[in-house]
Amino acid sequence: MNIGIVVFDDAEELDFVGPWEVLTSSNQVFAWQKQPAPDSIFLVSENGQTVRCAKGMRVEADHSFATCPDLNIILVPGGQGTRREMKNPAMLDFVRRQSARCEWVTSVCTGSLVLTAAGPAQGKRATTHWGAIHELEAIDGVGEVVRDQRYVRDGNLVTSAGVSAGIDMALWLTGERFGKEHGALVQKSIQYAPEPPFEVAW
Amino acid sequence: MNIGIVVFDDAEELDFVGPWEVLTSSNQVFAWQKQPAPDSIFLVSENGQTVRCAKGMRVEADHSFATCPDLNIILVPGGQGTRREMKNPAMLDFVRRQSARCEWVTSVCTGSLVLTAAGPAQGKRATTHWGAIHELEAIDGVGEVVRDQRYVRDGNLVTSAGVSAGIDMALWLTGERFGKEHGALVQKSIQYAPEPPFEVAW
Repeated sequence: MNIGIVVFDDAEELDFVGPWEVLTSSNQVFAWQKQPAPDSIFLVSENGQTVRCAKGMRVEADHSFATCPDLNIILVPGGQGTRREMKNPAMLDFVRRQSARCEWVTSVCTGSLVLTAAGPAQGKRATTHWGAIHELEAIDGVGEVVRDQRYVRDGNLVTSAGVSAGIDMALWLTGERFGKEHGALVQKSIQYAPEPPFEVAW
Repeated sequence: MNIGIVVFDDAEELDFVGPWEVLTSSNQVFAWQKQPAPDSIFLVSENGQTVRCAKGMRVEADHSFATCPDLNIILVPGGQGTRREMKNPAMLDFVRRQSARCEWVTSVCTGSLVLTAAGPAQGKRATTHWGAIHELEAIDGVGEVVRDQRYVRDGNLVTSAGVSAGIDMALWLTGERFGKEHGALVQKSIQYAPEPPFEVAW
């Protein structure tokens, strides 16, 4: 399966590196079990060039929109750059065209703004970062906007809440694809037994 | 404060991007409050060149060991590459030299193998990825190796368990430096309210 993670300037680092770690660790767990790694996971930017993320990390892309193979799973992260990308015709065309044949269409954080502007999330149940709920609600064609869930599935569309929620979503998706036993091994491999240190008022 | 995150070939992506996201989001929370951002956070590789991480992501460094300013906080991530780096004299010298004047010396996952080989963690209480406990115990000069804690503090040394534990550690450290109220705002900004989907036998 080809899994394409779309990156762009001002994409939020953890939005895409969280799922990247989960999805690539799934391959690694299969390798430990002497089974073939089923997924090819790569980063795609519009021109195939290095992006400068929201917090300044510079990450190289593996493909441009033009060289990107047909995707089975697409993931659009969030970050401040989504406000530009939701109006970028090249991004909207790429997301729309690839999503049409994907088995799973996914986003993290404000990536759902792009999925809604591009079409695939229109009329669907979806979520986003808690601070961007109103921005999502304001997009033409938006469906039901869900709050207070880590990720929301509507058919083959799975949208996540903010930043770190992409880890939960990617683990869930791994379990859907390969079973809960495999998903649990991936969760164990990244020692995901989180203990957030503070009480937060949401 | 200069916060240097050391990267190298086969560093584990989430090991350093988790803390990167937390530490840079701390700056952002201050900016939202119209306060100056207190930290300069950057990636340092031996030659200042792009590294190819454990799962294939290519990330550009901001500094080489030679150009890196004096650090106030150092963070060494894990990943398969630590087995090479714990025998790399240039890495050991850099970590030893910088750690000597750091306010905080930190690691994620098998980064503690490097901190122990280099000296700063010798004789101290420390932890690592659950699968690397015996490797840490086998290093000359190792102190007490702790299991089943997300992060372990011994003086100004803070070592984390595997991969995702760096997020918890970086949030805790942010609370130590700037107070729990600020730490909670950072935790909220990355919507860190995790819900691991699977039951894991540890």
